[in-house]
Amino acid sequence: MTIDVRSPRQETAGGSDDDVLLPVEPRVREIARELYGHARDLPLISPHGHIDPGILADDEPFGDPARLFVVPDHYVTRMLLSQGISPDALGVPRVDGGPVQSDPRVIWRTLASHWHLFRGTPSKLWLERTFTGVFDVHTPLRPETADEIYDALSARLAEPEFRPRALFARFNLEVLATTESALDPLTRHAKLAADGWGGPGGRVITTFRPDDMVDLEWAGWPDRVRALGAMTGCDTDTLSGFLDALRLRRLDFIAAGATSSDHGHPTARAASVDDAASIFTRGLRGEAVTAAEAEAFRGHMLVEFARMSTEDGLVMQLHPGAVRNHNTWLHSTHGRDVGGDIPEATEYTRALRPLLDEFGHDPRFRMVVYTLDEQNFSRELAPLAGGYPSVFVGAPWWFLDAPEALRRWREAVTETAGFYNTAGFVDDTRAYCSIPVRHDVARRIDAGFLARLVAEHRLSLDEAGETIADLAYHLPKKIFKVG
Amino acid sequence: MTIDVRSPRQETAGGSDDDVLLPVEPRVREIARELYGHARDLPLISPHGHIDPGILADDEPFGDPARLFVVPDHYVTRMLLSQGISPDALGVPRVDGGPVQSDPRVIWRTLASHWHLFRGTPSKLWLERTFTGVFDVHTPLRPETADEIYDALSARLAEPEFRPRALFARFNLEVLATTESALDPLTRHAKLAADGWGGPGGRVITTFRPDDMVDLEWAGWPDRVRALGAMTGCDTDTLSGFLDALRLRRLDFIAAGATSSDHGHPTARAASVDDAASIFTRGLRGEAVTAAEAEAFRGHMLVEFARMSTEDGLVMQLHPGAVRNHNTWLHSTHGRDVGGDIPEATEYTRALRPLLDEFGHDPRFRMVVYTLDEQNFSRELAPLAGGYPSVFVGAPWWFLDAPEALRRWREAVTETAGFYNTAGFVDDTRAYCSIPVRHDVARRIDAGFLARLVAEHRLSLDEAGETIADLAYHLPKKIFKVG
Amino acid sequence: MTIDVRSPRQETAGGSDDDVLLPVEPRVREIARELYGHARDLPLISPHGHIDPGILADDEPFGDPARLFVVPDHYVTRMLLSQGISPDALGVPRVDGGPVQSDPRVIWRTLASHWHLFRGTPSKLWLERTFTGVFDVHTPLRPETADEIYDALSARLAEPEFRPRALFARFNLEVLATTESALDPLTRHAKLAADGWGGPGGRVITTFRPDDMVDLEWAGWPDRVRALGAMTGCDTDTLSGFLDALRLRRLDFIAAGATSSDHGHPTARAASVDDAASIFTRGLRGEAVTAAEAEAFRGHMLVEFARMSTEDGLVMQLHPGAVRNHNTWLHSTHGRDVGGDIPEATEYTRALRPLLDEFGHDPRFRMVVYTLDEQNFSRELAPLAGGYPSVFVGAPWWFLDAPEALRRWREAVTETAGFYNTAGFVDDTRAYCSIPVRHDVARRIDAGFLARLVAEHRLSLDEAGETIADLAYHLPKKIFKVG
Repeated sequence: MTIDVRSPRQETAGGSDDDVLLPVEPRVREIARELYGHARDLPLISPHGHIDPGILADDEPFGDPARLFVVPDHYVTRMLLSQGISPDALGVPRVDGGPVQSDPRVIWRTLASHWHLFRGTPSKLWLERTFTGVFDVHTPLRPETADEIYDALSARLAEPEFRPRALFARFNLEVLATTESALDPLTRHAKLAADGWGGPGGRVITTFRPDDMVDLEWAGWPDRVRALGAMTGCDTDTLSGFLDALRLRRLDFIAAGATSSDHGHPTARAASVDDAASIFTRGLRGEAVTAAEAEAFRGHMLVEFARMSTEDGLVMQLHPGAVRNHNTWLHSTHGRDVGGDIPEATEYTRALRPLLDEFGHDPRFRMVVYTLDEQNFSRELAPLAGGYPSVFVGAPWWFLDAPEALRRWREAVTETAGFYNTAGFVDDTRAYCSIPVRHDVARRIDAGFLARLVAEHRLSLDEAGETIADLAYHLPKKIFKVG
Repeated sequence: MTIDVRSPRQETAGGSDDDVLLPVEPRVREIARELYGHARDLPLISPHGHIDPGILADDEPFGDPARLFVVPDHYVTRMLLSQGISPDALGVPRVDGGPVQSDPRVIWRTLASHWHLFRGTPSKLWLERTFTGVFDVHTPLRPETADEIYDALSARLAEPEFRPRALFARFNLEVLATTESALDPLTRHAKLAADGWGGPGGRVITTFRPDDMVDLEWAGWPDRVRALGAMTGCDTDTLSGFLDALRLRRLDFIAAGATSSDHGHPTARAASVDDAASIFTRGLRGEAVTAAEAEAFRGHMLVEFARMSTEDGLVMQLHPGAVRNHNTWLHSTHGRDVGGDIPEATEYTRALRPLLDEFGHDPRFRMVVYTLDEQNFSRELAPLAGGYPSVFVGAPWWFLDAPEALRRWREAVTETAGFYNTAGFVDDTRAYCSIPVRHDVARRIDAGFLARLVAEHRLSLDEAGETIADLAYHLPKKIFKVG
Repeated sequence: MTIDVRSPRQETAGGSDDDVLLPVEPRVREIARELYGHARDLPLISPHGHIDPGILADDEPFGDPARLFVVPDHYVTRMLLSQGISPDALGVPRVDGGPVQSDPRVIWRTLASHWHLFRGTPSKLWLERTFTGVFDVHTPLRPETADEIYDALSARLAEPEFRPRALFARFNLEVLATTESALDPLTRHAKLAADGWGGPGGRVITTFRPDDMVDLEWAGWPDRVRALGAMTGCDTDTLSGFLDALRLRRLDFIAAGATSSDHGHPTARAASVDDAASIFTRGLRGEAVTAAEAEAFRGHMLVEFARMSTEDGLVMQLHPGAVRNHNTWLHSTHGRDVGGDIPEATEYTRALRPLLDEFGHDPRFRMVVYTLDEQNFSRELAPLAGGYPSVFVGAPWWFLDAPEALRRWREAVTETAGFYNTAGFVDDTRAYCSIPVRHDVARRIDAGFLARLVAEHRLSLDEAGETIADLAYHLPKKIFKVG
């Protein structure tokens, strides 16, 4: 049984709320409904995201609605910050351990009293449709309904069928990949494997993310390199020993079900450099390393990781283009990953060329490339994915994971790369309960896009029906080697 | 009473011309009509523009149609130049004082005989709907109707109800901000204040625009700095005296009603530099200052202006990204601001970071950021406005102030920044009579955008109705601190 | 008689297949149909493309379907390569002369068995509508219909009315420009002229493309410069002799009907440099020339070519922004122009300024500027074309020559440049049989765009009808000085 995430109550002119996000023109909507029908009940493949695996390993009840829906969701807290509401008032922990709002009901009321800020945003869509579809709470969120909704959600969260593993089944999830640092002991995945939920081919798998091992500008890097040595028994005082250690860790991750690695770099630079070993050694010794050298080292390591992929088969995911911790105040008060990153222009054509020269035609290599810079879709990523056998365009990411941006993505990419060089929807989320609605949004947008192609006589209905099932299920399964 | 700027006569298939610019699909159009109804009669807030305040201070009748609609409108004269018609033939004054076409009827006929060039442009929309809505002239402009329309417009312009102050009331304008150089004596605003039209909280207010004081590459800069000293009694031979003088002038502007400053820089660079005083002094002495130093000084001054904003409360507007006087021939023959500027790529994420580090979370600081480079909307400006309490995304500007671009703007910005981090429509115009239609166009596009969200079940009709009134009236009033 | 390229058989919900690519909303579609009717039967003007003139000079029957539709079409072979199918398997000749698939039926079956990859791409549209419209073959391509379609196409290709000149008439082509290197002896065009098909004002004309004469980084450059000397009797050991030689060759091309030159540079840089003669001489001697110097030389030559245009009247076309031979493996195995180029970000505002300073207002000069980087359309190209009498925005090129991109182009360009600063559709194709459908696609997209303007009351039906005929026929004829 799949849960129904398609029925928020809205009093709007005409149409049924089953038609959320579908094109309005009646003939196109009719086609879109039919196409959506081919996708809506297919299992969810979530090959990349940031769910805490402990949620599923421990299967404890979720906390209160504020701690589930507000505190950890930087889409929500950054929007409130943008209108002057401090993360302190939303219960986001401070770096200095200082006091923050601890009453979840107060936090919830703050959200409710600013709910109008989210009009037109995907956060509104995700939360409202999660309340209705997952929690069967249909009262619209408003300042005056805050307590009613809080109480209703709290009551549900106390029920056994709202525990994480029960929801996993109701969400119709087939496989969920979490993302762990290269130093993660993977104990939570071991627990999952012991319970029959994890390991190779399991329902919950991990992803190898070594960013903090290759970023010399990230505080504490030498310590982490030494910890990696201790963990693997390799001599990480040398670059070659460091590479060996990473290879071993990848095997550990593969044993915990991983089928891909993930790389969140400032740029897409991927080029070997002669002085990589020298930069590495100087960095380890705490000697001066310039920003340019740190960037060169990251670029060097991307090529090394590509090489490892040809050996161990992990699909390489690349997420470049965010200026991390742009919001200096927020970083200093509340740390990383709380909404303080800002995108910048990104270049792929020249940046990826050295890597593609070496591995772009290697049948053992596969990479999925994401961007925060939409202009790349038609200009660089679609041409690259439509010209190299190893390259696939990743789904719209982060700020772009929203209906209008998903639509623009298909419009920008399809004519050059087709559908089959795109990697399928990726939810990339930290919000477990939002997974079904995020996938549902992507399926609806794809249905609308394909329906227009059919209505404009560019695709037959049969072709479109086959395509939407491929996009929703078969393609991500194949490209990410899951299931 | 508001005037009707919604009824040009067009023989087109189906629908009423009250539906201009509204979406065509019948259900969406019905919703859009209802939403537009919430906005159409709200007073106009014009917090940024380039109307000559003397028009309203003197309240003299406008001249002939050519001098009102053609000669000063660089949207119009540049399009005609692009097809080989010299500004001389359009009566645009020459730098050398040489002869230009002086017969307004001849100029008007030139416009009429090239009217097809404007198909699909906002100039066509603005002019046609101004003729019909403001002047009640409904004959379509064509070569053969040039004289008829010229005569009809001329007759209207001679009537007392077409004087500037009468039109102000008919336009339903609540507040209009003009823009003056830091050296402006503000005598026209004094006249307005004396007549009960100006001053703080008045109907016509000024805006502080100090570009010619901070741009060392702008001919005559040292003289202007000295004039500033003479005007304020400050010692502008030193940077600190110069800053004091600017502070005093801002107070003069505030006394003349100003609630914001405006900064039209080549880039968004906003960073303090150690050698600002040295650059300033060398510039004043007429010693060599490099282009890089001039740019560094402008960036330094943006931070200083932000600091002043925290002290005196002026909202900071930033308009970067135009290569001024790109058209060298046009600049040499007809001067500045006659259509010779061309946009270029602009970067905000790194450029604004130093300023935001210092003032981004200061509750006394507020900035509205504009762009001519659309890719910035989803990539940089929406994330910045959706993450910093002080930042708002300005309305599409200049080349982007047009129906398609306004639509793309909402589509690009809303999902990340929502509606409430956008600053409301700004007409930015030099063309007084086009003010109502420009605002009307923005209200119609917003109605259409919101109507689609309603029709796609992403927003309730109530939410959309409240939102469009906020966008049209309440938000700009609040963000720009006017009224 | 024009052939019908508007009737592929598709079983889709509602509407007739005469409505391919027209907007779906019934009122807009009705207007679009009427507008399309004004354009569909107008003769085709093809002022820029890459058809081999020998096809028309010799008028031999085409080969088999694989050699006509697959082997030479890099849109097709690169998509298949992107899914792991080697160009060898598609019969693309190898640089080393090694064996490739030589059985056309096998190649054809490979295409058919991967036909789903092309869903949503213009290649699918072009091929399907060419099969139905030109060859009257209506069976949809599928793995199981590969042989049937192969046989049907083969049968047609053997008929006399499918010879190139017969098709030229059926295609309703009025003029077709091919593109030749500056060293081309133009013998095929001489044959065409002798047959009454070529020469000034003829049906088949040439275009002067001197890229391989000005690109010092292109292997064999000194030899080609010497060959140019031998061909023209000029002393090409000096830059001034080289320029004289190019001038002479342009006259040869004009005698073969050329009305334009074409320049495919890495960037839009167009600026004279003082050391051009020195770079030239060193390059000729085989001495070291840096990448920066090679780029400076190309930029210098663009200005020289602009100067020549003012003398001989050739319209200058500029195609910058492709990283040629990005796919190193593909370049090394199969050479140039087989799908291995990737776009990158391009800048025009500053790059073109020196050239425009010199010739931008010269009534003898005209340039058509293309891009692969869509952000340029609203940001730079529309403002340039809408502000300089000599500049026209070229049609969407290469990766952007597809329905969605054509639509976005009109939306991005029209509001600033209008319709009359755009240069009309250019097919730019190597695929002779796809010419009619490519033009038909552009006419349909323009009809849809204009129909929306009419339905939104922004344009009258009369204005739109006149405009679409101008876009389809009159404008390109005038701007490219053909016919």
